[in-house]
Amino acid sequence: MPEQMNAAVLDQPLSIGVKRVEKPVPDDNEALVKVHCIGICGSDVHYYEHGKIGRYEVKEPIILGHELAGDVVAVGKDVTHIVPGDRVAVEPGMTCGTCKYCRAGRYNLCPDVEFMATPPVDGAWADYVTVRSDFLHKLPDPMSYEEGALLEPFSVGYHAMKRGSVGPGDSVMIQGLGPVGLLAVQAAKLFGASKIYVSDVVDFRIQKALDFGVDGVVRPADGDVRRQLQEISDGRGVDKIIETSGNHIAVADTVHLVNRGGTIVYVGLPVKEEIPMDIAALVDAELDVFGVFRYVNTYPSAIEGLAQSGLDLKGIITDSYPLSDIETAVEKARKEKDKSIKIMIYPDGSGLE
Amino acid sequence: MPEQMNAAVLDQPLSIGVKRVEKPVPDDNEALVKVHCIGICGSDVHYYEHGKIGRYEVKEPIILGHELAGDVVAVGKDVTHIVPGDRVAVEPGMTCGTCKYCRAGRYNLCPDVEFMATPPVDGAWADYVTVRSDFLHKLPDPMSYEEGALLEPFSVGYHAMKRGSVGPGDSVMIQGLGPVGLLAVQAAKLFGASKIYVSDVVDFRIQKALDFGVDGVVRPADGDVRRQLQEISDGRGVDKIIETSGNHIAVADTVHLVNRGGTIVYVGLPVKEEIPMDIAALVDAELDVFGVFRYVNTYPSAIEGLAQSGLDLKGIITDSYPLSDIETAVEKARKEKDKSIKIMIYPDGSGLE
Amino acid sequence: MPEQMNAAVLDQPLSIGVKRVEKPVPDDNEALVKVHCIGICGSDVHYYEHGKIGRYEVKEPIILGHELAGDVVAVGKDVTHIVPGDRVAVEPGMTCGTCKYCRAGRYNLCPDVEFMATPPVDGAWADYVTVRSDFLHKLPDPMSYEEGALLEPFSVGYHAMKRGSVGPGDSVMIQGLGPVGLLAVQAAKLFGASKIYVSDVVDFRIQKALDFGVDGVVRPADGDVRRQLQEISDGRGVDKIIETSGNHIAVADTVHLVNRGGTIVYVGLPVKEEIPMDIAALVDAELDVFGVFRYVNTYPSAIEGLAQSGLDLKGIITDSYPLSDIETAVEKARKEKDKSIKIMIYPDGSGLE
Amino acid sequence: MPEQMNAAVLDQPLSIGVKRVEKPVPDDNEALVKVHCIGICGSDVHYYEHGKIGRYEVKEPIILGHELAGDVVAVGKDVTHIVPGDRVAVEPGMTCGTCKYCRAGRYNLCPDVEFMATPPVDGAWADYVTVRSDFLHKLPDPMSYEEGALLEPFSVGYHAMKRGSVGPGDSVMIQGLGPVGLLAVQAAKLFGASKIYVSDVVDFRIQKALDFGVDGVVRPADGDVRRQLQEISDGRGVDKIIETSGNHIAVADTVHLVNRGGTIVYVGLPVKEEIPMDIAALVDAELDVFGVFRYVNTYPSAIEGLAQSGLDLKGIITDSYPLSDIETAVEKARKEKDKSIKIMIYPDGSGLE
Repeated sequence: MPEQMNAAVLDQPLSIGVKRVEKPVPDDNEALVKVHCIGICGSDVHYYEHGKIGRYEVKEPIILGHELAGDVVAVGKDVTHIVPGDRVAVEPGMTCGTCKYCRAGRYNLCPDVEFMATPPVDGAWADYVTVRSDFLHKLPDPMSYEEGALLEPFSVGYHAMKRGSVGPGDSVMIQGLGPVGLLAVQAAKLFGASKIYVSDVVDFRIQKALDFGVDGVVRPADGDVRRQLQEISDGRGVDKIIETSGNHIAVADTVHLVNRGGTIVYVGLPVKEEIPMDIAALVDAELDVFGVFRYVNTYPSAIEGLAQSGLDLKGIITDSYPLSDIETAVEKARKEKDKSIKIMIYPDGSGLE
Repeated sequence: MPEQMNAAVLDQPLSIGVKRVEKPVPDDNEALVKVHCIGICGSDVHYYEHGKIGRYEVKEPIILGHELAGDVVAVGKDVTHIVPGDRVAVEPGMTCGTCKYCRAGRYNLCPDVEFMATPPVDGAWADYVTVRSDFLHKLPDPMSYEEGALLEPFSVGYHAMKRGSVGPGDSVMIQGLGPVGLLAVQAAKLFGASKIYVSDVVDFRIQKALDFGVDGVVRPADGDVRRQLQEISDGRGVDKIIETSGNHIAVADTVHLVNRGGTIVYVGLPVKEEIPMDIAALVDAELDVFGVFRYVNTYPSAIEGLAQSGLDLKGIITDSYPLSDIETAVEKARKEKDKSIKIMIYPDGSGLE
Repeated sequence: MPEQMNAAVLDQPLSIGVKRVEKPVPDDNEALVKVHCIGICGSDVHYYEHGKIGRYEVKEPIILGHELAGDVVAVGKDVTHIVPGDRVAVEPGMTCGTCKYCRAGRYNLCPDVEFMATPPVDGAWADYVTVRSDFLHKLPDPMSYEEGALLEPFSVGYHAMKRGSVGPGDSVMIQGLGPVGLLAVQAAKLFGASKIYVSDVVDFRIQKALDFGVDGVVRPADGDVRRQLQEISDGRGVDKIIETSGNHIAVADTVHLVNRGGTIVYVGLPVKEEIPMDIAALVDAELDVFGVFRYVNTYPSAIEGLAQSGLDLKGIITDSYPLSDIETAVEKARKEKDKSIKIMIYPDGSGLE
Repeated sequence: MPEQMNAAVLDQPLSIGVKRVEKPVPDDNEALVKVHCIGICGSDVHYYEHGKIGRYEVKEPIILGHELAGDVVAVGKDVTHIVPGDRVAVEPGMTCGTCKYCRAGRYNLCPDVEFMATPPVDGAWADYVTVRSDFLHKLPDPMSYEEGALLEPFSVGYHAMKRGSVGPGDSVMIQGLGPVGLLAVQAAKLFGASKIYVSDVVDFRIQKALDFGVDGVVRPADGDVRRQLQEISDGRGVDKIIETSGNHIAVADTVHLVNRGGTIVYVGLPVKEEIPMDIAALVDAELDVFGVFRYVNTYPSAIEGLAQSGLDLKGIITDSYPLSDIETAVEKARKEKDKSIKIMIYPDGSGLE
């Protein structure tokens, strides 16, 4: 009889609970990872609440969760660069390696990706998970499991900086201060942005950004965002905007806020299907606009980049729970967006402080 | 008493006529150019009809026209690389050379540009015009005056190809077949695009594109453009879209027509202020979007590039008039958009066939 | 008993002959390709003559040849996008798809590549060969088998153009007119280069380049190459140099021949270990220099790009032989470099004219 | 009678002294700058010692010095963005703004540049200097005059990072720890390089690099640099090398030290005319190599980038002198390269501590 383990299974919207399920066995090119900690992502909450996101629908019971780090406890026979005992971060999308996108260095666009916790692929709110070994990234000693798990949302910001060629001399505004936006602040610092401004409507999130040392705040609730931005920037405006809020007004504002010849990176997925955009402004100012879908080639360099940076990722973790409290945790993520940012799950509770 | 010359002066909307005006005298760093031929641009027609475009308003009588080639007849004392007798194309926007945009190689964004026929700067529907010598480009022998004049609208397409990194292997769709769109077809060929599709609603213009050898046509009037595009492309779609129509439906369609990971270049200035855009599609497909405002550094390389290409630019010239017929010419440009594409003016009539 | 086929086996330097060997059987993700035609590459000749190239040594009998096109006759059970009957070009280097180079879109640098005819991996001078299906590229109807086979050396030039960002407005000099150099001439045309100059010492090869329509020739045997280049270019020099000869003098000359701010692409592998280079000139002129190792992501876009280009690749084929004449063919390639350029082998002789 | 001022005049090699010369008067587009402090550059020392560098020869008495900051005391009538009282850094090369290099955003390659202290153009070892106003850059309050003066050598490193696309995830080695090399260490940090290794033979300079926090040191004097690099990098090597030493062995080593697919930026001008280079290694590893000549568009963004970075530039200043001690200062720079790094001159002595 196969071994069993605990996993949080979502049966149908709003119905989640820890069950005994079969413990997975690694294939030849996989490793078995004991999950140390794993975050709750907005997409997890959305599946929990609505049972689907766009074209992805939960049709069978599913294990959610895809922001994780843990310990390798077993490896398949073809695995060479990873051994049991290694501390690893998991890059949660397994790609084909042979399609035109994979070949061209844009594997995030691989049409055959199997992405954890995107139906029907199981995620890792569980004791164990098997992962293709080339998507495991060893954590250096100074990097904690929590930072390893946070590499996933951090990667989105990191990729956004690369898409937008952010670097020294750039003044940047990051719109939206959810986990991705806040980690994008740290990514912008890592890439050497000279000025980092942020915008959001929630004080609690703005305070985190200020703790991270941003240079100024725009509060859309206080009116005229353009004037606010001119004020905090001494009339210079910003060269680049990283839009992570997905809010349709924030999205539409970008073309009027960014400097002539500037760059906009759209990261947040708008809920609203159609957003009235002033495309003439985009043309007249000859803007560059880049979409960001997940991330590509971020883990190894982000690990290298963060290792000695002293940048604080863990500051966005506001709550921690054992797997047994998964329902409480997800409900908190769902209902208390103004008080919690990133919630971390510790399957066996051993990492909880 | 200063010398006089003929020029077409727009006094107020719909009131234009040839008058005797002062013949300009070149400054130390300028040349005096005898205009051989000069095109009528959509912006000229717009000023003629409405007296303004956006923030630019005709407040004093103005000479329009900015697509020209001619002969250098005199030069200022500091001019060295150009001599009387040279055949030249005129790049019509004089930039400061010292602002951050000029310094960075994006002089098209120079805030202090003086652009011919953009109020209050006079253009060149006239016998003569003075031009800063560094904006004059010598025409090689095989290049006609007409091609020299058409370098101006061609430059827009040329710049669009550079902004969109168009090259071999790319399948491209060019939306809108006015002069800029048609010349963009030739620019796409020059840059080695593998497949060139076009879309427009006017048969006359579509026929010109077919004459230029495009690989397929989408006719929005016939319904479902996406399906049409899939059919003509054997289900492959297009990697890049160059949108020159400015039509709001065409602009909005781009994000649904282009392939995943693809590129959109917006060239046409939409009249409609707000266009409902599916930004989620742009994010999900991780598109690149570039605005195009005029052009930069195109003349010398376009001249080099066209010289031996055998590409037909002149095919878009549908009508020719002497300067004395300027009103007839502009009225034709205004009213018969379905039968004329580019109308060329010959100030002294000597180049007319 | 397994099926047999003919293959040209190199036992030791200068000893090659056709033998009966086991006909390969495709794995699940492979296809069996009946070879229609396959070229002789300089590297094949080098292994034939010297038994090794750099760190690669022929220790066991080996089948050479890696420039081929043919017909798919069987496929493994996991192969979906290719079916028996397809005409295909074979991209001869199978890469891992998971290393950092493969992930980043530079799979040509994959350290685990298995490249046909690079010891100890067999090539395809044989009736049949098995190939991983993702390295098979369907040939469109208008593209001949010969062109399909020539895609391999053409890819080197194609990749060189991408590395050097060659495009309209560029004046380019291609040094060395072996098969790679001559096909690089056609690649430069495909990418829209405005002027293409070439240099070589062999009249026969220069004549081929002239047939291809190059704009001028530098003959190093006639002395002062810099002066020659200035003359044929009307004193303008060249913006970019594609060096394919590997000749140490030609390599060293590049930094003095290219224009200030220009680009050099080194394609040819120099035999001489150390070449005296004027690095101060490279610094002072702020040059860009790029190495080229094989090619990456070239096949699909080169196929698209060539399909309607009318560019002549086959013009470099000077000789054709059946597989049974392999020794004669290789000896010709080895000894008559001044009279032959590309020699094509037709395993069953059926494609021979 | 025109006003007089003090200036250090080089009459002939090794003969320099302070003289009374005419105080310059600003043209319409210039400002008069009272020099607060100005560094001694290796090129100044070279002109002092040898009377020439390459094609530039001191034929008339010349004022040297081009690394400076000071106070604007008067402006010409066309100067608008700078006013008397402004603290400014001086970008010392005045370019034409109209040539193809200036137009393309590479004004450092302008053939008509007038570069301070490059014969026959005077520099600024003097009380005052006039400068075209578009080459003056206002210093923000927290930036000292000394940092303003050091922007000049820092710009070289800054430009090198841009040429080499240095950023997070990159491991970088900087060869040579003169002022440019040491400031390149700080530039690498500003651009987010993950690992910074250095190499030099002088302990004093190595210690400065260690003070700046580099991750490891290669000492060529201790033998096998490749092995040393492997050791300090845990076998990972480096992705990018910034070579500032100009030493011919160091230059030649680069192609063997950098990782496959890596990047080399040559900054240091080698004295030796021909350096034996393994170009085959450059081809085989498909390296990118970039020359660096001075810098372009660095001042505004470096000022922005440094302002809040906390990076120490002043740490390289080892000695300070009043202008009256210029001979002592230059002799020290010439003879005691192992004990001094950057020597700063204070014309009126008022900034000396």
